Amino acid sequence: MLTSISGFPEWLPEDRQVEQLFIDTIRKQFELFGFAPLETRAVEPLEKLLLKGETDKEIYLLRRLQADPDEADKEVGLHFDLTVPIARYVVENRGRLVFPLRRYQIQKSWRGERPSLGRFREFTQADFDIISEEELTVQSDFEIIDLLREVLQALPIPKTRLIVNNRKILQGYYQGMGIPDPAPVLRIVDKLDKIGSQGVYQQLLTEARLEPEQAAACLQLGQIKTNDPSELQSLVQSTGVRHPLLETGLEELVYLLGALGGTAQDLVLADLSLARGLDYYTGCVFEAKFRELPKYPSIAGGGRYDNLAAAGDSLRLPGIGVTIGITRILAVVLHEGLLRASRKTPSCVLVALVSEERRGHSLAIARKLRQNGVPCEVYEKPDRYGKQIRFADRRGIPFVWFPAEDGSLDGEVKDIRSGDQAPADAGTWQPPEADRRVRMEWDENAYQELLKNPVYTDQAQEE
Amino acid sequence: MLTSISGFPEWLPEDRQVEQLFIDTIRKQFELFGFAPLETRAVEPLEKLLLKGETDKEIYLLRRLQADPDEADKEVGLHFDLTVPIARYVVENRGRLVFPLRRYQIQKSWRGERPSLGRFREFTQADFDIISEEELTVQSDFEIIDLLREVLQALPIPKTRLIVNNRKILQGYYQGMGIPDPAPVLRIVDKLDKIGSQGVYQQLLTEARLEPEQAAACLQLGQIKTNDPSELQSLVQSTGVRHPLLETGLEELVYLLGALGGTAQDLVLADLSLARGLDYYTGCVFEAKFRELPKYPSIAGGGRYDNLAAAGDSLRLPGIGVTIGITRILAVVLHEGLLRASRKTPSCVLVALVSEERRGHSLAIARKLRQNGVPCEVYEKPDRYGKQIRFADRRGIPFVWFPAEDGSLDGEVKDIRSGDQAPADAGTWQPPEADRRVRMEWDENAYQELLKNPVYTDQAQEE
Repeated sequence: MLTSISGFPEWLPEDRQVEQLFIDTIRKQFELFGFAPLETRAVEPLEKLLLKGETDKEIYLLRRLQADPDEADKEVGLHFDLTVPIARYVVENRGRLVFPLRRYQIQKSWRGERPSLGRFREFTQADFDIISEEELTVQSDFEIIDLLREVLQALPIPKTRLIVNNRKILQGYYQGMGIPDPAPVLRIVDKLDKIGSQGVYQQLLTEARLEPEQAAACLQLGQIKTNDPSELQSLVQSTGVRHPLLETGLEELVYLLGALGGTAQDLVLADLSLARGLDYYTGCVFEAKFRELPKYPSIAGGGRYDNLAAAGDSLRLPGIGVTIGITRILAVVLHEGLLRASRKTPSCVLVALVSEERRGHSLAIARKLRQNGVPCEVYEKPDRYGKQIRFADRRGIPFVWFPAEDGSLDGEVKDIRSGDQAPADAGTWQPPEADRRVRMEWDENAYQELLKNPVYTDQAQEE
Repeated sequence: MLTSISGFPEWLPEDRQVEQLFIDTIRKQFELFGFAPLETRAVEPLEKLLLKGETDKEIYLLRRLQADPDEADKEVGLHFDLTVPIARYVVENRGRLVFPLRRYQIQKSWRGERPSLGRFREFTQADFDIISEEELTVQSDFEIIDLLREVLQALPIPKTRLIVNNRKILQGYYQGMGIPDPAPVLRIVDKLDKIGSQGVYQQLLTEARLEPEQAAACLQLGQIKTNDPSELQSLVQSTGVRHPLLETGLEELVYLLGALGGTAQDLVLADLSLARGLDYYTGCVFEAKFRELPKYPSIAGGGRYDNLAAAGDSLRLPGIGVTIGITRILAVVLHEGLLRASRKTPSCVLVALVSEERRGHSLAIARKLRQNGVPCEVYEKPDRYGKQIRFADRRGIPFVWFPAEDGSLDGEVKDIRSGDQAPADAGTWQPPEADRRVRMEWDENAYQELLKNPVYTDQAQEE
């Protein structure tokens, strides 16, 4: 990762190839599930960006270098996620869209906050959401998480785990115990992994000002972790707390765990401490983490929001969605050497140049190869063949084509990895399918090495 | 095109599908020619953005909503093109790159200028460049224009023409006539298409302060238009002006015209009035226009720049590159109805839902279809089949799958366009290849209608 401006990562061409293949893989899964693409503009009116709260200090405002004085009232800033923009977009274009809208959006966002481990000022995320004009059912929760799981399994990344919860359980539980403001409790219990049960208990007393028995009960709920639907049910019921919202949330989570567990039991875990920071979640919440790298931050997260896309009193478009942190994942897999491009360039063949006079011949061969879908380039100058082969080798181009003397499309093609050379006709020759396009290569040895000493680092702060 | 903030276009999902397929088509050609992908961050230091001159008023500066006072000296702005960033990137990462670098970059840029016809404040461009550590030859000029031509032919757009020139011809010619500052002359002659020969002649007298015979000679050169290499040579020589730089430029342009003309004579035209505004071009310059829509602005342009990527006195990386105006082209083809997506969603199949109890059955069918590469979705609620079919119809989903009573992967699949319905097994069923993915559909009738009354409009200013 290159960061000549702190927090604004850039890649070398070979790593950008990995990023593109990564995004292609994600996009393919989105489309298999019938999600349509969308992009929103980079800017939103400042008042829309401020609506969500908490993030005001992170916003990048735009100002024209030679701005007119009358522009001050139309302030716009760069979006800091893809949720605020889609909520605005669906309300604005409601009459032109078909609901339920299944859309995905793979785009950059910007946050002015201080760059740190896993946090960038510019980063790419892949979002997908179902947004409806009617009440969404738990089926949409399942569908969204099912797709997330498919995406994570299709990507060449460390093994993952999905952690799920339901905010209705937490809110119902806290209300059932007579806690008037659940928000600070949610936030504190969410830190269970980081500060431990003692830390959570203390903060519940001092910051959320709970009674000791309330704090203990909140901690008890937060400590429930299971992938077994019926165990989940009995553990929550054993707390003795009752509330209609709690019952609804529990029913939804039990269903979800059962539906997801059917295919990948060890990949999914209900963890009742999970709240996800954002205030707009109203039901199911979840995140994905690297299963064997527990100290690493989450790589995806999302949940149900019933009131985010709204205008006035009458219009309310409930939704559920996910954000996958592409830049955050790539920073790990590229920096740790887990993933690399199979070569530095798309070219599968370097067509050698015999002499300046015979350039037209090499160009004709290249044209024919391209017509047959083989990426290639013609060497620039009539250097010695040894130099031309070294050029291919440095970029990882697997094949060099030597044009025949007679100026035809025949010639000899050399696999420079094996040294094998054989006659070939540019009109019909095809590379092995694995060589045609650049591939992503997973390095299992590097992964096993990482597991021995999994310290989370990235280059965001190494300037 | 949706523009709830003036100059910041957004698309509906169906049009975003077209944009993606458009970009896929371009990317495929880039990769067939062995160009590697790259992205640069959205921001550059203000001083880099100001280097290029002329554009200072267009820059969007970034300011954090709650900025520290000490940040003023590190001002950054959004890039307004992809050329300034790549020039900075190659110098900065020179030791990590393999030269000659063949890179492409498909990204958004931002300009704070007033939105008008074909000019947006946020827009996507596709750039590709060859950047070398050594002198580039005319072969690179040819290769770049050859690739541009392939891209334009691969895209479903109105017929195009490439207009080529060489700045060395113009500079040598003006110097040969003893004109001390060729820059204003370049700029005025470049307007020949817009203001006509009388207008150019007058401005050469009044603004460039040329003598009448100098103005006439500059006009004579600017009026040369031909696609025949030898005619080009004789027309330029007949002016009687001689200069070594002129000879070099003419030789290069004659070669280029010959090399390009070999395959597509009517697609290429040398036009000696073409200068392209940007000061950094030093040789070959070119642009692409819609051949049958002459009033429409150029859709791509580029040229050779020998001094853009430089650091200090010693480092100079000559390059040649092109910018394709994706947003500008899409604004035309989508707004005029020339191009549309074959359906509104990636889903090829809607799997019907028989009843809530049998949802698992529909989900299993969908899973199997996806495993076989068929994009699909399951209908949300157990509505009447008629309603489910109408849902598919509204989105253009061609097939509806009715699960069999026995809960197996068998069922019936209906082509809702023809009404044909037949038994099918989700384990093996495949749609016709043309239906599997969304396609771009060109409407030749709409194009013929446009040709009858080709007034250039877009929605940029219709708010």
